[in-house]
Amino acid sequence: MGHASDSSLMLKRMGIDTYQEPIVYMRADCHVCRAEGFSAQSRIRVTTDRASIIATLNVVRDGFLEAQQAGLSDAAWRLLEATPDQLATFSHPRTVESLSAVRGKIFGHPFQEAQLLAVLQDIAAGRYADIDLSAFLTACAAGGMSLDEVVGLTRGMVRVGECLTWNRALVVDKHCVGGLPGNRITPILVSIVAAAGVCIPKTSSRAITSPAGTADAMETLAPVDLDLATMRRVVEREGGCVVWGGAIRLSPCDDVLIRVERALDLDSDAQLVASVLSKKVAAGSSHVVIDIPVGPTAKVRTPQAGEMLARLLERVGREVGLQVRTVLTDGLQPVGRGIGPALEARDVVAVTRNDRDAPEDLRTRSILLAAETLELAGACAIGEGVARAQAILDDGRAWRKLQAICDAQGGMRTPPVAAHQVEVAARRRGMVTGFDNRRLARAAKLAGAPADAAAGVDLHVRIGTTVDAGQPLFTLHADTAGELTYAQEYLAAHPEIVAIAEVS
Amino acid sequence: MGHASDSSLMLKRMGIDTYQEPIVYMRADCHVCRAEGFSAQSRIRVTTDRASIIATLNVVRDGFLEAQQAGLSDAAWRLLEATPDQLATFSHPRTVESLSAVRGKIFGHPFQEAQLLAVLQDIAAGRYADIDLSAFLTACAAGGMSLDEVVGLTRGMVRVGECLTWNRALVVDKHCVGGLPGNRITPILVSIVAAAGVCIPKTSSRAITSPAGTADAMETLAPVDLDLATMRRVVEREGGCVVWGGAIRLSPCDDVLIRVERALDLDSDAQLVASVLSKKVAAGSSHVVIDIPVGPTAKVRTPQAGEMLARLLERVGREVGLQVRTVLTDGLQPVGRGIGPALEARDVVAVTRNDRDAPEDLRTRSILLAAETLELAGACAIGEGVARAQAILDDGRAWRKLQAICDAQGGMRTPPVAAHQVEVAARRRGMVTGFDNRRLARAAKLAGAPADAAAGVDLHVRIGTTVDAGQPLFTLHADTAGELTYAQEYLAAHPEIVAIAEVS
Repeated sequence: MGHASDSSLMLKRMGIDTYQEPIVYMRADCHVCRAEGFSAQSRIRVTTDRASIIATLNVVRDGFLEAQQAGLSDAAWRLLEATPDQLATFSHPRTVESLSAVRGKIFGHPFQEAQLLAVLQDIAAGRYADIDLSAFLTACAAGGMSLDEVVGLTRGMVRVGECLTWNRALVVDKHCVGGLPGNRITPILVSIVAAAGVCIPKTSSRAITSPAGTADAMETLAPVDLDLATMRRVVEREGGCVVWGGAIRLSPCDDVLIRVERALDLDSDAQLVASVLSKKVAAGSSHVVIDIPVGPTAKVRTPQAGEMLARLLERVGREVGLQVRTVLTDGLQPVGRGIGPALEARDVVAVTRNDRDAPEDLRTRSILLAAETLELAGACAIGEGVARAQAILDDGRAWRKLQAICDAQGGMRTPPVAAHQVEVAARRRGMVTGFDNRRLARAAKLAGAPADAAAGVDLHVRIGTTVDAGQPLFTLHADTAGELTYAQEYLAAHPEIVAIAEVS
Repeated sequence: MGHASDSSLMLKRMGIDTYQEPIVYMRADCHVCRAEGFSAQSRIRVTTDRASIIATLNVVRDGFLEAQQAGLSDAAWRLLEATPDQLATFSHPRTVESLSAVRGKIFGHPFQEAQLLAVLQDIAAGRYADIDLSAFLTACAAGGMSLDEVVGLTRGMVRVGECLTWNRALVVDKHCVGGLPGNRITPILVSIVAAAGVCIPKTSSRAITSPAGTADAMETLAPVDLDLATMRRVVEREGGCVVWGGAIRLSPCDDVLIRVERALDLDSDAQLVASVLSKKVAAGSSHVVIDIPVGPTAKVRTPQAGEMLARLLERVGREVGLQVRTVLTDGLQPVGRGIGPALEARDVVAVTRNDRDAPEDLRTRSILLAAETLELAGACAIGEGVARAQAILDDGRAWRKLQAICDAQGGMRTPPVAAHQVEVAARRRGMVTGFDNRRLARAAKLAGAPADAAAGVDLHVRIGTTVDAGQPLFTLHADTAGELTYAQEYLAAHPEIVAIAEVS
């Protein structure tokens, strides 16, 4: 353009966290705003000698910036890999071409596979504003997605991310569509399956809105923040691992879409299936067992909805080369006793080590899902999975495998114990009839989970337990008195988190 | 809640302009974020003793805020009518109920009128995030809107805003769906119609993305920023006015929806019709003439699309008690010579005063639309409107009326003239065959319009004009040398703004 220097400014990291949304801050009186006609909420292309992103403009006054500076939010700074005082140029972005396919979908034209790939490439590159993401998700939900479209979406998500490969014909994986607190089955299942000689290189997520993700809980037992080379060494040696997947960009669109879907409260099977299966394909899996908890406060609320989701997962799985087995499970209440990273890890150790007081529900469900995994992988005959999984757990092989995996990941740790522990008692006599899973999770978070690994909630009752007035229902764990107080105040305001019915 | 003081902070105006999006800035380590579990992009209810809004959280570090402070963007500050250091409390907002109707529409259920009203009330109160607005507009476009739904949308828009009433049975209005630079017909038409004794209390908008709105151009002739009482006195005395509608909240959802529609590039007749007609009903009009320019770079691109829009405007108008007459006009090129507030006002004066060199196209089109207005209002017989309008223009009554209206609005002014004027010449011999209206508007904005009222573009040619190489096509007007340079550089990069074909 010949006069590029006219539209350049020096970059400053503002220190403002807008989560995933790239924001650029400029003074209204700066020469670039005036020349280009930018105003608040303009979409602006920001280009350095290294990278180029599209960001939304916030106009600042007062003393935020010098005349020759432009500020970036944390997300914009990261995407641009910027350095302080680096020069950048600012221009009107070209139209994002793939949005015309989104407009087409709005007006009834199904997506072609190439169009979906283009949409996902643009999303991964940060070229979609939040309102564009919302329009894309709304159009998919409103128009419905055919099997071909879900397959195209899944393949597109695989292609825009990185992919792992393993020198094995058979690589298994396990996934839970989620919605229940606790339910920390993965480390137990990996230990059983790897001990049976089946390769299971598991990457897990950290908590987004829950009190703990699998990676958070596992981190209280061993390092999980492994690079790919280290992960490969662990899997080579032990046949399995439980590491954090965040260092590997398996499906870069996924978090972005999930955030907007969640904000819109727009659950769609198409997005869920593409999200889950694309990550499994990208992780190099050949066989996947998918746990679908069904319950009124779980993600899937009715058995009918569970069946529909299961069929779609299996059909799309077939198209993208994955053997998928789905299992509908009881999603009425938390599984295990602990809610929070360290408390969940304690349950995992208790079950794997065959402790006498290990939570029976977590043990049973882990055996069930491990059995499905072994059968799917052909490691035992159909119908013999439960006996096989149970034997591996009972004779100590699973416990030795968990210890070996933790050692290989960098050394086994003992989960921390919280400094403050306060019991919360039943207000009346009766029988426990239900849990508000959402509020239980909230209480654990107010107590400090997952940032404070030791914090959370430890349940002493399950549905069907009869209690006397004053009998402890659960114990709050917190590392500071302040957080303990927040959680206690919240519980005082919501006494019906554990429902108790009078029994005559 | 007993511990409200625990979730309160003192408000600070950050000095960050996020256009219409309310943003609240908080420190990650402040006790409210920790207690409530807020994180970046959380939606937060902010409540003072006076008002309550929902805002999006940006988390700040470093030295932006004291420990006991929360910051607000300009939009949040305005919506909350906040004062410095005022105390506010922060909580999780309740679910926005009307979003369930939007989700219903996504999955194929038509909106009921009461649901549309609830949606619009929530939008007007700032309870919809941008992604919610996008989902609403996308769902309307994807599902299509029935006549009943468009009527419900229009009535809802009327009900959430203020309404004007006039002590007249017959109140006329005029609207242009837009897309052409120049085309400053309104002040001329108001002068003719008011001189004929028909009441026309015109509220107009300022430019949003164009080089001039009617209010911007009129402001170079008289004050337009009138309160309602003053506007009433002007209309009482002169039978008409041309004032800025911004001081009166006739349709508070409108700007918000238009911003998101434009960003999505999602034109929908339903939204356009509801937007236009709701403002006319709210302004107290009984009869409306609507100008629909049709052309490849205008808003409406084909005669077929123009006809469909015209029929919908008329049918919905009937349902909401408005007599609507639509006129399809030629939208190939700018109307008049000036583009920019003062240059357009100069054309208005020239036509109204019957100057010999007044732009003929602007005169003709003003007479045509004034004629339609007079006929619709019953001020003359059908077929006699043109003669009547022309007579009022020719004999000086329109010019006297324009002067009287300007005087009543606060005193007539002379439009300013720019300090810098540079002619832009044809590069070759030939015939003018077309204009890139969008880029012409851009050049006028780079020259400083509409903020600098004198700035803009003055055209010397029209389609069909034959020119020699070096003959001036138009003149750039700018108040500063810098702005002149920006516009010149832009023109150098885009030489084909005026298309010239060789003639043999």
